[in-house]
Amino acid sequence: MMVPGSPIPDLEGGFRRKDLLGLAELSREEILHVLHTAARFKEISEREIKKVPTLRGRSVIHLFMEPSTRTKTSFDVAAKRLSADTFAVGGSSSATSKGETRIETARNVEAMRPDILVIRHRHPGSAALLARILSCSVINAGDGSHEHPTQALLDMMTIRDRLGSLEGRTVTIVGDITHSRVIRSNLHGLRKLGAQVRVCGPPTMIPPGIERLGCRAYEDLREAIDGVDVVMMLRIQMERLGRKGQLLPSEREYANRWGLTLDSMQYTRDDVLVMHPGPINRGVEMAPEVADGPWSIILDQVTNGVAVRMAVMYLLAPKGGSLARDDS
Amino acid sequence: MMVPGSPIPDLEGGFRRKDLLGLAELSREEILHVLHTAARFKEISEREIKKVPTLRGRSVIHLFMEPSTRTKTSFDVAAKRLSADTFAVGGSSSATSKGETRIETARNVEAMRPDILVIRHRHPGSAALLARILSCSVINAGDGSHEHPTQALLDMMTIRDRLGSLEGRTVTIVGDITHSRVIRSNLHGLRKLGAQVRVCGPPTMIPPGIERLGCRAYEDLREAIDGVDVVMMLRIQMERLGRKGQLLPSEREYANRWGLTLDSMQYTRDDVLVMHPGPINRGVEMAPEVADGPWSIILDQVTNGVAVRMAVMYLLAPKGGSLARDDS
Amino acid sequence: MMVPGSPIPDLEGGFRRKDLLGLAELSREEILHVLHTAARFKEISEREIKKVPTLRGRSVIHLFMEPSTRTKTSFDVAAKRLSADTFAVGGSSSATSKGETRIETARNVEAMRPDILVIRHRHPGSAALLARILSCSVINAGDGSHEHPTQALLDMMTIRDRLGSLEGRTVTIVGDITHSRVIRSNLHGLRKLGAQVRVCGPPTMIPPGIERLGCRAYEDLREAIDGVDVVMMLRIQMERLGRKGQLLPSEREYANRWGLTLDSMQYTRDDVLVMHPGPINRGVEMAPEVADGPWSIILDQVTNGVAVRMAVMYLLAPKGGSLARDDS
Repeated sequence: MMVPGSPIPDLEGGFRRKDLLGLAELSREEILHVLHTAARFKEISEREIKKVPTLRGRSVIHLFMEPSTRTKTSFDVAAKRLSADTFAVGGSSSATSKGETRIETARNVEAMRPDILVIRHRHPGSAALLARILSCSVINAGDGSHEHPTQALLDMMTIRDRLGSLEGRTVTIVGDITHSRVIRSNLHGLRKLGAQVRVCGPPTMIPPGIERLGCRAYEDLREAIDGVDVVMMLRIQMERLGRKGQLLPSEREYANRWGLTLDSMQYTRDDVLVMHPGPINRGVEMAPEVADGPWSIILDQVTNGVAVRMAVMYLLAPKGGSLARDDS
Repeated sequence: MMVPGSPIPDLEGGFRRKDLLGLAELSREEILHVLHTAARFKEISEREIKKVPTLRGRSVIHLFMEPSTRTKTSFDVAAKRLSADTFAVGGSSSATSKGETRIETARNVEAMRPDILVIRHRHPGSAALLARILSCSVINAGDGSHEHPTQALLDMMTIRDRLGSLEGRTVTIVGDITHSRVIRSNLHGLRKLGAQVRVCGPPTMIPPGIERLGCRAYEDLREAIDGVDVVMMLRIQMERLGRKGQLLPSEREYANRWGLTLDSMQYTRDDVLVMHPGPINRGVEMAPEVADGPWSIILDQVTNGVAVRMAVMYLLAPKGGSLARDDS
Repeated sequence: MMVPGSPIPDLEGGFRRKDLLGLAELSREEILHVLHTAARFKEISEREIKKVPTLRGRSVIHLFMEPSTRTKTSFDVAAKRLSADTFAVGGSSSATSKGETRIETARNVEAMRPDILVIRHRHPGSAALLARILSCSVINAGDGSHEHPTQALLDMMTIRDRLGSLEGRTVTIVGDITHSRVIRSNLHGLRKLGAQVRVCGPPTMIPPGIERLGCRAYEDLREAIDGVDVVMMLRIQMERLGRKGQLLPSEREYANRWGLTLDSMQYTRDDVLVMHPGPINRGVEMAPEVADGPWSIILDQVTNGVAVRMAVMYLLAPKGGSLARDDS
């Protein structure tokens, strides 16, 4: 039984993939399927005994080639609440740092027979590359500026928790649009669920032709957030900011023109929702008063992150007759 | 059932706290309650199957903002022997190092729904600050020079294992009294259990007015350890020692005047007990022959550390009807 | 029951050791016993539920004083598939780096009551030293240039998987023979199982008198690999290579003369097996086409590593009447 005490959701047959690489290739139905499953799993983390035997005896390997505590911890919490065993590979002391290629590392990791490999890598396409050559499931936890699908899924789950549906809603995403994998995944997902998307940021951080992805680009923050349902601020990579007089805005210029402050909140709807994938550069992309204010649903994002990742691992894991035996 | 095969200790109602922040606020009865519970849990680590289902399905997050292998491992062993799932957050690659505040980190961690947060932070009061804003239990694993309550509890447990009671005993604590959280917690605990405390160290490392906390201060080591039941040596932070001629003693001066050597042991009782929270600077605060000698109960401290932390986690965790169901 | 669903191997009484320190002291029968047990455990990693309750409630501590992701992960996967709890101690932030001795660290670790301590340390004899003073089981995961017994066991298991028996086979090991613990363990093991061993490498990397260990030394690679059943390439420590004109070969010279390339493969049997303990310096000791070619059984080595380590932990762990109760 998947979740003891809960009715099993009627979702059989809706998600038949080996890997989760991005939202570009998922259908609207598949995305909704993950979100419905996540809603069921969310309840588990509110119990006293936050654990179901769903993935008992399965091995999940976290292969993080870029530093990340938050996403990795979220995946780890999710896996352990499904009773999986988890292993962390990668980082500065790993074989990769001894000159191994991604493929070699992945093949070696797979030889230990994991069921799921969660991978973060700075090169776009890394997750897809590994998914092709490995027989275990691969979850993309961020591949360069390409996609970060579980982040977008948790974002959509969090908005739906508040607004019921994304149909006809408008979401503004503010930041370094060019380099953000979070926006790429959200653009695909939000549009498939019927939302309109605006992007906003310094012109040097918005790729030309972004409109072809189905969104509208704004340079002016106030204009961009006027009347929208959700404002999603992205983390700015401080090393991407310049000094005064350069093409890239300085930290101060960025905060003044694209930072979400109490002042800029006057130009939004009163019931607007404010989001951020975290960690926040407080005082740069967002003022502390906004991050901690009544609009903020940032901590809901973190909570939903665990539920979404539980759902994804559950849906990807091979399900045989063994699940019945798993009810220890 | 809490501990299969053991009678359940009759301690209900004795410890009703959400957090363990320090020994300053614990009553004598509460301290004894923890120590009695720890004595029961100690036996589990001596079994072949060192595990009880007490905290199965609960999540313990270790949030260590200062390096610590030993204390963190002890908490981790304790949590896993209670069947909890554990997660380590913090360290150099964490969001905190990306500029997050303690409160923001803690709120984000809590959004993943841990039951217990074990925190070490260099700022005094960090654990209390987080305990106020978080709904999960917070255990202080050391907050700057303030308190380190589980260390003092394991110290007291170790003395009681040998001497039966602390009533009327005298304990001398030697080291950098000003900056030690171990001494602060021990001062509160030892006095509440009826022991007398002497402190000893370089005058520049003893805060003026320390006597008001109920102890007697000594500069001379031989005098300080004369006739006492227990000598507890603290780890000296080598970077706090000076060069010859400065206000702070050099390493050599410190070792000569305040280091516990075979020579200085001649000025103690034959059956004196020698303790150290570890890791020892051998040859500085303690000679190897003393650390490994018959007086030493240092390794008992390590063993009791696991038992005390198991007891504290057990006592803090919310206990509902689920404990009965927990008997897998 | 040891492995549910599998007949229990008839190996009782064959392996009665507290520790696994090296293959020098193991008899042919003991080595075969481990390999037979490993063959049984290998099947567990191919199941959907990759877990048996064999070591439930036991604690395994990984004490790695040298960086190692792959070996450590392999031991961790093995321990968790046996249902043990695992703890990692050591590394740059550990007490050891605060000046503790190996013995002190080990005694402190043991005071937390592990059942098995897996140790890697740069000093030869470290594992044996700790095994003498500790009551828990010690597994040597590499002690300087001395031994790395589980590596040799997994190597032998992998060859036997392909060739049935080592009796009368010839194995060539190429690399820095002087500093390799892998070769030392393999020399002992392979010869006890009836294989002949050739070693090959730059003369400055072959210790004089190596023939007394029962192998034949070659400078010329083609000669060394001519007609043999197995070629085992060792990882070269790049920092041990010199510049042109020095006694030690440069990286380029090494690759040209002792690297295994498609060209050098022409001088071997068509059905030769190629091995490497990983991670490979591609293009130095082995060309990518060879590592990924049909001769390569390198990934089998990784898979067998988990099985061998499960077997070793199973054989070392104290077995009482509790194993029957362990069938949860």
